[in-house]
Amino acid sequence: MMKTILLTGFEPFAQSDINPSWEVARALDGWRTEQFIVHSVQLPCVFGTAQQAMIHAIEQYRPDVVIALGQAGGRCEITPERIAINIDDARIPDNAGSQPIDIPVAAAGPAAYFSTLPIKAIVQNLSANGIPSAVSQSAGTFVCNHVFYGLMHYLATKQNPARAGFIHVPSLPEQAALHPGEASMALADMLHGLRLAIQTSCSQQQDIAVTGGQIH
Amino acid sequence: MMKTILLTGFEPFAQSDINPSWEVARALDGWRTEQFIVHSVQLPCVFGTAQQAMIHAIEQYRPDVVIALGQAGGRCEITPERIAINIDDARIPDNAGSQPIDIPVAAAGPAAYFSTLPIKAIVQNLSANGIPSAVSQSAGTFVCNHVFYGLMHYLATKQNPARAGFIHVPSLPEQAALHPGEASMALADMLHGLRLAIQTSCSQQQDIAVTGGQIH
Amino acid sequence: MMKTILLTGFEPFAQSDINPSWEVARALDGWRTEQFIVHSVQLPCVFGTAQQAMIHAIEQYRPDVVIALGQAGGRCEITPERIAINIDDARIPDNAGSQPIDIPVAAAGPAAYFSTLPIKAIVQNLSANGIPSAVSQSAGTFVCNHVFYGLMHYLATKQNPARAGFIHVPSLPEQAALHPGEASMALADMLHGLRLAIQTSCSQQQDIAVTGGQIH
Amino acid sequence: MMKTILLTGFEPFAQSDINPSWEVARALDGWRTEQFIVHSVQLPCVFGTAQQAMIHAIEQYRPDVVIALGQAGGRCEITPERIAINIDDARIPDNAGSQPIDIPVAAAGPAAYFSTLPIKAIVQNLSANGIPSAVSQSAGTFVCNHVFYGLMHYLATKQNPARAGFIHVPSLPEQAALHPGEASMALADMLHGLRLAIQTSCSQQQDIAVTGGQIH
Repeated sequence: MMKTILLTGFEPFAQSDINPSWEVARALDGWRTEQFIVHSVQLPCVFGTAQQAMIHAIEQYRPDVVIALGQAGGRCEITPERIAINIDDARIPDNAGSQPIDIPVAAAGPAAYFSTLPIKAIVQNLSANGIPSAVSQSAGTFVCNHVFYGLMHYLATKQNPARAGFIHVPSLPEQAALHPGEASMALADMLHGLRLAIQTSCSQQQDIAVTGGQIH
Repeated sequence: MMKTILLTGFEPFAQSDINPSWEVARALDGWRTEQFIVHSVQLPCVFGTAQQAMIHAIEQYRPDVVIALGQAGGRCEITPERIAINIDDARIPDNAGSQPIDIPVAAAGPAAYFSTLPIKAIVQNLSANGIPSAVSQSAGTFVCNHVFYGLMHYLATKQNPARAGFIHVPSLPEQAALHPGEASMALADMLHGLRLAIQTSCSQQQDIAVTGGQIH
Repeated sequence: MMKTILLTGFEPFAQSDINPSWEVARALDGWRTEQFIVHSVQLPCVFGTAQQAMIHAIEQYRPDVVIALGQAGGRCEITPERIAINIDDARIPDNAGSQPIDIPVAAAGPAAYFSTLPIKAIVQNLSANGIPSAVSQSAGTFVCNHVFYGLMHYLATKQNPARAGFIHVPSLPEQAALHPGEASMALADMLHGLRLAIQTSCSQQQDIAVTGGQIH
Repeated sequence: MMKTILLTGFEPFAQSDINPSWEVARALDGWRTEQFIVHSVQLPCVFGTAQQAMIHAIEQYRPDVVIALGQAGGRCEITPERIAINIDDARIPDNAGSQPIDIPVAAAGPAAYFSTLPIKAIVQNLSANGIPSAVSQSAGTFVCNHVFYGLMHYLATKQNPARAGFIHVPSLPEQAALHPGEASMALADMLHGLRLAIQTSCSQQQDIAVTGGQIH
């Protein structure tokens, strides 16, 4: 049966006028194969309303797979996140000027949720196809983690069996050109990587047992 | 009332013949003030048995505060960890040759536990005293995180009210001298930092509301 | 008058089966505009013979501008080098197994030569066009610096007025995919960057006065 | 015969109120053994006058060995510099507000001078004694390089046979505590390292042939 993929990206934030996560999501909106179709939605970079926009999109599209994308300026690779944690701790204000410190995402929620995407298989598939990729053990404590946790908590609460997770993408070259020393990745490579990640998320039932851990 | 502090450090691992976490714990063993006394215990760098040694020490000393220390080679700062996650994913074998991949620390445990140490107050106190320090959002997925999760899970399961958490220390200069490009910290500064961290853990009831988050 | 550009790249080295410097040079071989034509030559990654191949190519093509390219694995940006130094100090063997330590490139040569390319204008032009770029203060002490010094020394000795210098390019994504944590740049962006660098080297007579320095 | 060592350090710069290079020099002022005596002098962090203060000190003390120290914020190790280059290119203003861009240190001077300290032997000795150390291929283009070049040019011009060079030291822990992510080294370890470097500079006639190079 045809699967529905919900792909989200963020609006620009932190003085940038572009966000690679949305550039990727936008470019893949409407992509369909015999196995799936992709619907893309932009989220505001705002605590609270970003989560509400995510939930609204899930209710609208009833996806089988949800992949939330965000920008991780400074990282070299496409990084599927392993875990979402129940905390908002903002080093900078969000796009609405809010800067929560050590506030739970969901007051009664558990401390964390693991991604249900096959993150090891995704990393292996991207790497094998020449796209730098690695598992990340922390999605941070800003709006990315907030949306990731909110997504997993919503699905758990609703007993919604959709597979879901978060993937960070690096800065684009035109962003890094303004920040000497910052790594970047071309949009074409991000798109190649995300296409592979979507396919793997649809086809790979169990994740594979290869290490993606960190000593510390 | 006099508080009892349990401080643990690890035996050496990964080709090193010294582990700064144990050097710190050993040097502070028996340290007492009017407020507390410190008992230090060495843990093996082995999945499973490290946790058992921790539990044994808790049952022996009945501490009010437990601070587990570990080495984070490459980090510049003393880093109180925010959260322990329910996964073992070993990039290298432990000292008994075991290398679990994506195995829960506790099969029926929750996804994560937050540290109950006042991590923001510790970082603020160390920084104000000239000791580089920062909150870390990930304790990795090796034996350090394993012990941290096991510690928090044991206390939660036993409804033991002890305050507990994990603090990573950098490599020592003599270790970094063998690994060009690796940051380090002098043992004297680590000891200064850990003394402050122990005092703050005893005196600071509620953590303070200052940011210690990451964008990603 | 039509200018002749000599562009060199290296054969693969250090366990890699591809070298981005040659991929760039090869792709631009024969590129011509109304102002210039590009001739590309591959150099061996071997002390001594790399220099001889460079000199042979200069004598063959009699270029107005020489740009030698090399790979700088780990760098994020396209980095025009400021200076070539008169030393070979190899951390690894070259492709012929030679590993000189603290041997001058040219026994009677001066300590160093500055690039005569407009390195600041190149960096400014690339950055303005969204290609990450920065001045580098050191081309290392391996075959890249060896060729760079040999090139400048040859031109100086022959009183050859050709403009010349060295530009390092990052790893390609398919290389970085095998080395977690290594930055990379897409070949298309490298080509865009080098086209701009060649045009700037032809059109910009004097370099511009913008900072490209380092504190240390 | 008793040797005279001139050791220089800089006054604080760039918003810091301390400079580890001067803390080290100050602490070693007057240190004497049967082989040598150390005289320490503070240099202003100002283009031009820093050089004049260096020359004045050489004329006053007539040293056999000159070691100029500077701070390299962000580096992990004590780094003897290999080469001084004939360029001032300031990314920030000096302490007098001057910010030269691409101005030669000495209008008629050569492009560069190599250190005449036994830099490989120094690195080996420090590393063997547990003090992180590495050869650096670039002293930057700010006041440190300016003083280093000026020192070597003065000695060359005067045919003064004194051995001379520049060594960068990391930030102090109390500086790094204000700059999250910055590596540091304890003052005691810097002093240990510089004592070894001074002894090696007096006793080691020829440098040793071990690699201290960089690929790029």
